[in-house]
Amino acid sequence: MNETICALATAPGGAIGIIRISGPKSLEILSHVFSKDLLQAQPNTIHYGHIKNGEEIIDEVLVSVFRAPHSYTGEESAEISCHGSRYILNKVIALLIANGCRQAGPGEFTQRAYLNGKMDLSQAEAVADLIASTNQTTHQIAMSQLRGHFSSKLAQLREQLLKLTSLLELELDFSDHEDLEFADRSELTELTKTIYNHIIRLAQSFETGQALKQGIPVAIVGKTNVGKSTLLNRLLKDDRAIVSDIHGTTRDTIEDTIDIHGVTFRFIDTAGIRETSDTIEQIGIDRTYQAIQKARIVLWLIDTEPSREEINNINRHSENKKLIIIKNKSDKDSNNSYNLLNIPFIAISAKFGTGIDELERAIYEAADISTLTENDIIVTNARHYDALVRAHDNIQRVIDGLEMQLSGDLLSEDLRQALDTLAEITGGQITPNEVLGNIFKNFCVGK
Amino acid sequence: MNETICALATAPGGAIGIIRISGPKSLEILSHVFSKDLLQAQPNTIHYGHIKNGEEIIDEVLVSVFRAPHSYTGEESAEISCHGSRYILNKVIALLIANGCRQAGPGEFTQRAYLNGKMDLSQAEAVADLIASTNQTTHQIAMSQLRGHFSSKLAQLREQLLKLTSLLELELDFSDHEDLEFADRSELTELTKTIYNHIIRLAQSFETGQALKQGIPVAIVGKTNVGKSTLLNRLLKDDRAIVSDIHGTTRDTIEDTIDIHGVTFRFIDTAGIRETSDTIEQIGIDRTYQAIQKARIVLWLIDTEPSREEINNINRHSENKKLIIIKNKSDKDSNNSYNLLNIPFIAISAKFGTGIDELERAIYEAADISTLTENDIIVTNARHYDALVRAHDNIQRVIDGLEMQLSGDLLSEDLRQALDTLAEITGGQITPNEVLGNIFKNFCVGK
Repeated sequence: MNETICALATAPGGAIGIIRISGPKSLEILSHVFSKDLLQAQPNTIHYGHIKNGEEIIDEVLVSVFRAPHSYTGEESAEISCHGSRYILNKVIALLIANGCRQAGPGEFTQRAYLNGKMDLSQAEAVADLIASTNQTTHQIAMSQLRGHFSSKLAQLREQLLKLTSLLELELDFSDHEDLEFADRSELTELTKTIYNHIIRLAQSFETGQALKQGIPVAIVGKTNVGKSTLLNRLLKDDRAIVSDIHGTTRDTIEDTIDIHGVTFRFIDTAGIRETSDTIEQIGIDRTYQAIQKARIVLWLIDTEPSREEINNINRHSENKKLIIIKNKSDKDSNNSYNLLNIPFIAISAKFGTGIDELERAIYEAADISTLTENDIIVTNARHYDALVRAHDNIQRVIDGLEMQLSGDLLSEDLRQALDTLAEITGGQITPNEVLGNIFKNFCVGK
Repeated sequence: MNETICALATAPGGAIGIIRISGPKSLEILSHVFSKDLLQAQPNTIHYGHIKNGEEIIDEVLVSVFRAPHSYTGEESAEISCHGSRYILNKVIALLIANGCRQAGPGEFTQRAYLNGKMDLSQAEAVADLIASTNQTTHQIAMSQLRGHFSSKLAQLREQLLKLTSLLELELDFSDHEDLEFADRSELTELTKTIYNHIIRLAQSFETGQALKQGIPVAIVGKTNVGKSTLLNRLLKDDRAIVSDIHGTTRDTIEDTIDIHGVTFRFIDTAGIRETSDTIEQIGIDRTYQAIQKARIVLWLIDTEPSREEINNINRHSENKKLIIIKNKSDKDSNNSYNLLNIPFIAISAKFGTGIDELERAIYEAADISTLTENDIIVTNARHYDALVRAHDNIQRVIDGLEMQLSGDLLSEDLRQALDTLAEITGGQITPNEVLGNIFKNFCVGK
């Protein structure tokens, strides 16, 4: 970390481009190419001047100066706010490199922030998640993680594990004194199970985390010509129109996902719907059931009363799924109650857009994440999930050992492993370079 | 300008996104959504905190505070440095708007800078040119204009015109006193012609300016199978390899342009070369001559000694053009002198890349802009060109009038028009809103 690094921190193509510099020589190097000497600059101040290569003026810029340790990286650092011409930005970066900077690798600024103790590993990872967040829930989870809520939860768990370890070691140390009373083994089991349940809950939240990150999977099923493709287009179009209205920017649309009240839903196997519905007699039964299998929410579109057999069929295949029954073509048929269907259904006209608000509300409610608050911890990172599963296995062995009346020294080995494994998440232990490299390689350059 | 405006100033998609705010309520509005009160913040200082909507934390940010009149716009203003998530950026902008900001229009910040006297119109236009600059020359011209070199040149010309006007008015006031001696009319003519020549030179530089902006037009001509397509690809690939090497970013390539020593060259009608060469017997003669007509530089590719007729033909059509004769396939035939050709030619192998450096040097020299320095003024803006041409017409009428011994009052009317026309360029006179709208509508939002 003795090197001074630089990188473009904004996407090229805007009115402004920001170049970041961090490292011990930041201000020295900058002073060589800037029209003012910044070596004595006060922390958190902004300086107007020119970036120049000898006599040639490359740009009129603003330089923001941050002094160690009160900077993002914890190092001496600066940001140059240039005109957003790619030519200018490249030229300034080339000039900085010529004067002793090195081009930063992906995530290298955040990696330095971690190494300098400005944040722990899970917080560093939250920075990347925050930048990648595309809706309210992913944003909320990343922000909660960045603000250390996950880290505190882990710290709590480790504290409980340490308590457990010390109780076991106490037992161990005095195991010769048969007249002393130790912590009741059943009490130990109780404490271990509490920890176990916390870890399980965290690990289980990963599935939700993944669903929220990638979109909650939704299947649209129903007979040919019932209007699946029209409904899909209606849901997609509705969403897109609103988004482009509010944001005024084109959006990197992921094919066939919609945002409802800040949650992303992803439609499964819609290629099939788009290609084949209304052309082929019926989507293969197998294919439909496969789509249902992958979904959390099933939209069953009907336009006439289904048979008893059909109802039984869909119910059987949608077990453990949220099933929403939708009656389409309400413009043609206003009969909104069927004898055989004892589940309520939503009447819509995909063609004319009626009932879509109600349907979206139902989809959102079916996702059942309305209870998600900033304090609920949802694991979204595969590395964290992996560590939690391993810690879970360690604790499982402790519980088994307690039941089998294994001696304390055997148990405390598993406990130590569980402690180490949880520490991996925040990087409390010394983290090998290889692991760090893996974590930061997926960051954007400039962060 | 009583409204407070905001806009995203960076392209979306980077590690950092900058949101700009300007207007009298900037700090008041910001203080509503920021974790700290900024109303008393010192100018040019940076503040760490949270953007929040009530209890919900939207982002951890840095806010840069600029106080009127020492800001880009001359107004109270601020920049919020957010995590570069589109979701976050949209949310922060929506929050600012909900708290009283208005979304800025294209170039509105720069327009305010102009209206507040921070820069003149031609400098404001240079900002857009600077952001759009893609190579050394366009960058240099924009920077020179931004730094006021064009404005000072215009100020000089206007001063001379004012001197001329006062001399003529002196003549007018005392025209009854036949015994007084006035400025010699031939002296007046001399001064007018000097001004005239300066304006002509500026107007003429527009053609160069356009060529530099859009790329200097180059035609590649020659028989089928002589290697035009290979040469074109060699020139393009060479350039791109270097560019992507240095910059490490993908570049918005404009089809069939190359940069040589910071100058852009644009190949004419290369679609024809790519599609047809080596497949059709020969590109139509007409089409070849049309390409030559549009070019400044003609690359004539040969692989055997051309006939006297061919030489005469190409010479006739390349009059007033720079003609570079290139002998391709030097790897197969090392005979580098032909009897009929008394012009030197460059031997290359497009296939193996030999001789390309020398060829590129020749192309660059043929562009004849090596003498371009920061102090040479090159007009690149069509609006300026238009004003210069009209001023030129006014001065032409003054010269004609002086020759025809017209009276001073008739002449001074034309002089006043010339003065007003030149003033349009820098916006020294009151500029109608319509004109301003036209100038700023092509800016990016956020500048």
